[in-house]
Amino acid sequence: MPQILIIYATLRGNTGKMVEPVAAGIRAEGVEARILPVDDVTMADMTAADGIIIGSPTRLGAVDWQLERLFDVETHAGYLGPLDGKVAGAFTSGSRAGSGAELALLNVLHILLNHGMIVQGDPYGPHYGPVALREHTEDIFHFCETWGARWARLVKRLAPAPAPQPPPMPYA
Amino acid sequence: MPQILIIYATLRGNTGKMVEPVAAGIRAEGVEARILPVDDVTMADMTAADGIIIGSPTRLGAVDWQLERLFDVETHAGYLGPLDGKVAGAFTSGSRAGSGAELALLNVLHILLNHGMIVQGDPYGPHYGPVALREHTEDIFHFCETWGARWARLVKRLAPAPAPQPPPMPYA
Amino acid sequence: MPQILIIYATLRGNTGKMVEPVAAGIRAEGVEARILPVDDVTMADMTAADGIIIGSPTRLGAVDWQLERLFDVETHAGYLGPLDGKVAGAFTSGSRAGSGAELALLNVLHILLNHGMIVQGDPYGPHYGPVALREHTEDIFHFCETWGARWARLVKRLAPAPAPQPPPMPYA
Amino acid sequence: MPQILIIYATLRGNTGKMVEPVAAGIRAEGVEARILPVDDVTMADMTAADGIIIGSPTRLGAVDWQLERLFDVETHAGYLGPLDGKVAGAFTSGSRAGSGAELALLNVLHILLNHGMIVQGDPYGPHYGPVALREHTEDIFHFCETWGARWARLVKRLAPAPAPQPPPMPYA
Repeated sequence: MPQILIIYATLRGNTGKMVEPVAAGIRAEGVEARILPVDDVTMADMTAADGIIIGSPTRLGAVDWQLERLFDVETHAGYLGPLDGKVAGAFTSGSRAGSGAELALLNVLHILLNHGMIVQGDPYGPHYGPVALREHTEDIFHFCETWGARWARLVKRLAPAPAPQPPPMPYA
Repeated sequence: MPQILIIYATLRGNTGKMVEPVAAGIRAEGVEARILPVDDVTMADMTAADGIIIGSPTRLGAVDWQLERLFDVETHAGYLGPLDGKVAGAFTSGSRAGSGAELALLNVLHILLNHGMIVQGDPYGPHYGPVALREHTEDIFHFCETWGARWARLVKRLAPAPAPQPPPMPYA
Repeated sequence: MPQILIIYATLRGNTGKMVEPVAAGIRAEGVEARILPVDDVTMADMTAADGIIIGSPTRLGAVDWQLERLFDVETHAGYLGPLDGKVAGAFTSGSRAGSGAELALLNVLHILLNHGMIVQGDPYGPHYGPVALREHTEDIFHFCETWGARWARLVKRLAPAPAPQPPPMPYA
Repeated sequence: MPQILIIYATLRGNTGKMVEPVAAGIRAEGVEARILPVDDVTMADMTAADGIIIGSPTRLGAVDWQLERLFDVETHAGYLGPLDGKVAGAFTSGSRAGSGAELALLNVLHILLNHGMIVQGDPYGPHYGPVALREHTEDIFHFCETWGARWARLVKRLAPAPAPQPPPMPYA
């Protein structure tokens, strides 16, 4: 059974509230979801997973600094390859329309693409991953759950993940 | 008196409805606002203005193709300089949270930065320009007006615009 | 055998020169590559493909307007679902470092994510897709070919594409 | 005389090498340039400046985590207003074309726009701020200097900065 890792940071609790609905959607597809706050994550947790989802509060149109540190320091020991080919996703909570939530979400996805990870958009919901704004609280847990299930189907479609390859050449 | 040009495209009328509130905010600061739909704009209209605001519907997380064509074809005849140093801004309407509205707005701002234009964020409202989503219709016209006034104050602070300089070197 | 569609626009020929090396990499993986200039593409061409690659010149940090029109008009007839679950990619040529090539590339990827398409980054080469700048012409055709092959392996890993599903709910 | 603050982080020294050429361009315009590494900056340093430039290494298509922390923690004590109306800019060093340098630069600019700061593009050089890639080392110090001078001219054009206003309404 594929294993999913959800890594999250939360500021006032809003991003944290999205974790369980996302995990519920994943589990509804028969996929295991492991949940870790950002401070508890090691590189071994990430390499063991078939897919990684990042939940970040919207911080000035950008990812939370603790998540940025996790990727800058923990995952980037001179070689980007270990997460190559895994499925990635992200969710965020912002305040209002135009408060930078989409930019924060894309900031996370760009980081994950640097690692060679695989991302899918969604034509039927928030296009880049769940976005909780103050204005649509009634819908957002529903979107978290359907997105989690959709995302888990991609993990199953791609399983098993291929073994990491030695890098053909460095890009630095 | 500085002159402002608002250029807009609209798909189902939502972006079009934002034009007048933005113009009202500009006029409240004693600045003239000229309004042109995208099909009627020439390069001469743009070079005559002290500031240019672009209103675009959100199209797949990007600017409307007719506005993209305006900038690709009309403004870019081998030399990017004529709009250098003018003030720029953008507004958009999307559907819901995560529907790509922020990305569309930034897509416009990036185009305008290529021309050497000047952009200001807003800590007190939608940070990159007015964003109309379906969920907060009650607020958005208010934000359009306060943003238009704020934006006009930047134009006045920068007036008069310096004469365009011959390019120190091409960047192509 | 999966079928790939490469759609491209070119301004001064530089993006056009990247098409064949990308196609060569795809074919080296035993995958068919069909090549169409932007003006010749129909929605039927796109729905028939298992994966779609877009080649665009860098236009003011954004996608070429003809490609934007293709997606705004041709692919977006009220329903975003038909390209859902297909593999997507993009390449671009710009002028120099900081000339907007990465922004143009991401502009394309964001459009494709709106359609529910699947994108993979690359830790071993240009991270979001091939980028030809004036300064590294010696390397870029090599990157086009290795990226084309890498991209084709993702298409094979995902094949066969699942049948499009009726939309669970509209997001507009 | 306006005062400029250059805040920088550097990983292997490449971003650090850009600081002096940027400062030289600023000083050539008769404007003072103060230079601080990220660890030494306080909010008082930032509020005292008329303009702030951020130099960040490219970290996975994003800003360095220490700079992200500076803005998340130090500048964002419940109220975004204190930097409103100041001039902002950014520079970065990446590895090669497509290595994420433009995305990192825009990541910084988006953060600064959240604070209400003012940004100008450049039609005659790297459009969003200086970008050092491995391939064009001969040019980049020249671009840093001309960009620093151009940027200082905007600070002078905008001086004196208006006194910060009490927030008309919170946006959170």
